[in-house]
Amino acid sequence: MNGDGAPKVERDGDTIRITMARAQRRNALSREHLTQLLAAFSEAGQTDATGIVLAGDGPVFSAGHDFADVAGASLPEVRSLLLLCTELMQTIQEVPQVVLARVHALATAAGCQLVASCDLAVAAESAGFAAPGGKGGWFCHTPMVAIARNVGRKRAMELALTGDVIDAATALDWGLVNRVVPDAELDDAVADLMGRATRGSRASKAWGKQTLYAQLDRPERDAYTTAIEVMAAASQLPGAREGMASFLEKRKPVWTD
Amino acid sequence: MNGDGAPKVERDGDTIRITMARAQRRNALSREHLTQLLAAFSEAGQTDATGIVLAGDGPVFSAGHDFADVAGASLPEVRSLLLLCTELMQTIQEVPQVVLARVHALATAAGCQLVASCDLAVAAESAGFAAPGGKGGWFCHTPMVAIARNVGRKRAMELALTGDVIDAATALDWGLVNRVVPDAELDDAVADLMGRATRGSRASKAWGKQTLYAQLDRPERDAYTTAIEVMAAASQLPGAREGMASFLEKRKPVWTD
Amino acid sequence: MNGDGAPKVERDGDTIRITMARAQRRNALSREHLTQLLAAFSEAGQTDATGIVLAGDGPVFSAGHDFADVAGASLPEVRSLLLLCTELMQTIQEVPQVVLARVHALATAAGCQLVASCDLAVAAESAGFAAPGGKGGWFCHTPMVAIARNVGRKRAMELALTGDVIDAATALDWGLVNRVVPDAELDDAVADLMGRATRGSRASKAWGKQTLYAQLDRPERDAYTTAIEVMAAASQLPGAREGMASFLEKRKPVWTD
Repeated sequence: MNGDGAPKVERDGDTIRITMARAQRRNALSREHLTQLLAAFSEAGQTDATGIVLAGDGPVFSAGHDFADVAGASLPEVRSLLLLCTELMQTIQEVPQVVLARVHALATAAGCQLVASCDLAVAAESAGFAAPGGKGGWFCHTPMVAIARNVGRKRAMELALTGDVIDAATALDWGLVNRVVPDAELDDAVADLMGRATRGSRASKAWGKQTLYAQLDRPERDAYTTAIEVMAAASQLPGAREGMASFLEKRKPVWTD
Repeated sequence: MNGDGAPKVERDGDTIRITMARAQRRNALSREHLTQLLAAFSEAGQTDATGIVLAGDGPVFSAGHDFADVAGASLPEVRSLLLLCTELMQTIQEVPQVVLARVHALATAAGCQLVASCDLAVAAESAGFAAPGGKGGWFCHTPMVAIARNVGRKRAMELALTGDVIDAATALDWGLVNRVVPDAELDDAVADLMGRATRGSRASKAWGKQTLYAQLDRPERDAYTTAIEVMAAASQLPGAREGMASFLEKRKPVWTD
Repeated sequence: MNGDGAPKVERDGDTIRITMARAQRRNALSREHLTQLLAAFSEAGQTDATGIVLAGDGPVFSAGHDFADVAGASLPEVRSLLLLCTELMQTIQEVPQVVLARVHALATAAGCQLVASCDLAVAAESAGFAAPGGKGGWFCHTPMVAIARNVGRKRAMELALTGDVIDAATALDWGLVNRVVPDAELDDAVADLMGRATRGSRASKAWGKQTLYAQLDRPERDAYTTAIEVMAAASQLPGAREGMASFLEKRKPVWTD
């Protein structure tokens, strides 16, 4: 019985798996669970792992905020809860590792926001995705920040306004996930995509994903200003030097950073 | 004979239908028709309706600006016409209701911009979409503001540069509309999607769509700053309190706002 | 033997074709080749041609930067190389002509960035697209500025992090190219799309593409501010006047600008 368990953190080779473990509460993101997830990501970010998989225990990936935390809470209390939740979403983008959501089932509200905030996502065929606040009384304002940056505008509006669940195939078509596979093949697909996404210099990749997030949503000229400086500086790092030397010398690279 | 008729405004239950009624002019958006549409949306926005359907009479949804207004007009005259047109597009996004375009036929230039500016869009199979200015002499600069925010960049360039018509299936694939149905099923599909999109607290939904537009096109961090404040404040409203209470008490919610 | 040849520049009717001609170096974008391409685009931009096709000789469209230029180069040297490369990408967007990438084969790193930076792109079925830096030691920071503005966020991350090649059909689905055709039909498809994209007033089209790039990636309200002024001013140009007059007079337009 693990209804209020802390997230499980397991290391397997170069990958750390963080598993939401409030199965009996549909992995609702209580203040305590958010705090624990944030700590888990921050700690994983300081290890030498190259990838982090975010998974969920039980029949639901995550149902988002725990209404028990919000019902009756004051505005400052809710604001601090949302700041905590946003810090988790931003930490996922800031850690040097590739972060991949393993979506085995329904992901709703802030649970869907988690999928949208991860660098990559692999879904089982029976997964589903929704932003249900819009059909209730508390609109999914912050989840839609992340979700609307993954799908087109009309599709974002449809998700937000109807609150309806889209299936995994639709999520793939709309660009919210990178792969959809039969449920039984989910872990293999996660391992395959993570393996592909973590090849090469770790330092190069970390700077890469951070810079990509930094330049998105900005005018193209401003984005280039950032990217040029980072890419020029990155050319001086051991990984870049080794990558180019090995290519020119027609040998396998050896990554030291 | 209704070639210069004012838009029709009809209420059916919780939905107001605004129908462009210059069928003999292909629902061209003359200064007068734009002024009437803007008034119709502003007035509808102040009612307790939960949804607004934008439709068009006759064989065309809307052919965009009426060249009779523009040919020979001075720069200040054209600027004021475009400001009026833009005010209509922004009002569609600002009214508290869900606005759904019912596209039964061809929508071109500012007519296509109307579809792109509505929150949601349902198209009949025989509908078509184009930004024809680019193949003529007056490029669709302002229509492309809305259209390019619905479809990808290469597709926006193709629409703008070729002026060619894309069919409804392509518009669905590119994310410009939410549904495509056989012509005879258009009204049923409009009613179905509108019904889904207008469930829940009206006040919550209104703030939701307005905030979603406010946070789009901005750096993610800035978007979160806005969304966090709105979502925290929204948690204090009757709709949010009722939504959470009814969920926790396992009963049907009763929306009062 | 054309391993270090300058780009070929050929005029055919209203179209200028610029062909990267370092076939033996996989059309790697050496400092010299970038300089020559920039000069070719700048010069073509000053002609009365209406379209520019960017093509590549040999078995690869372009493999991106030439590591021989970068390996061992100092930070200021690499920065100046990236500034030169970015100037080429921006010039493609600034020239008054419609620029169309003719992608017959693999386009990687800055070669894929070229495709993403052109207004339109037509690919042969055997073309492929990748941002391989992420699986090596030098992340594709600047290529991802252009590529991420063509495809969705999750897809951008997948390309950048895995470095894997996507095929032409996937590139079409993701919006990176406008057409995919059998290899033998590539030139016909290029000519067809270029013909459609260059109809109408040349001056109108030039201002159109430049304004479209200027308003993308900006908050919608700011985008309208720009587009309204340009569209009002454009209404006073000969092309707009002729377009509207010919439409109202039901005759064929004659473009003089």
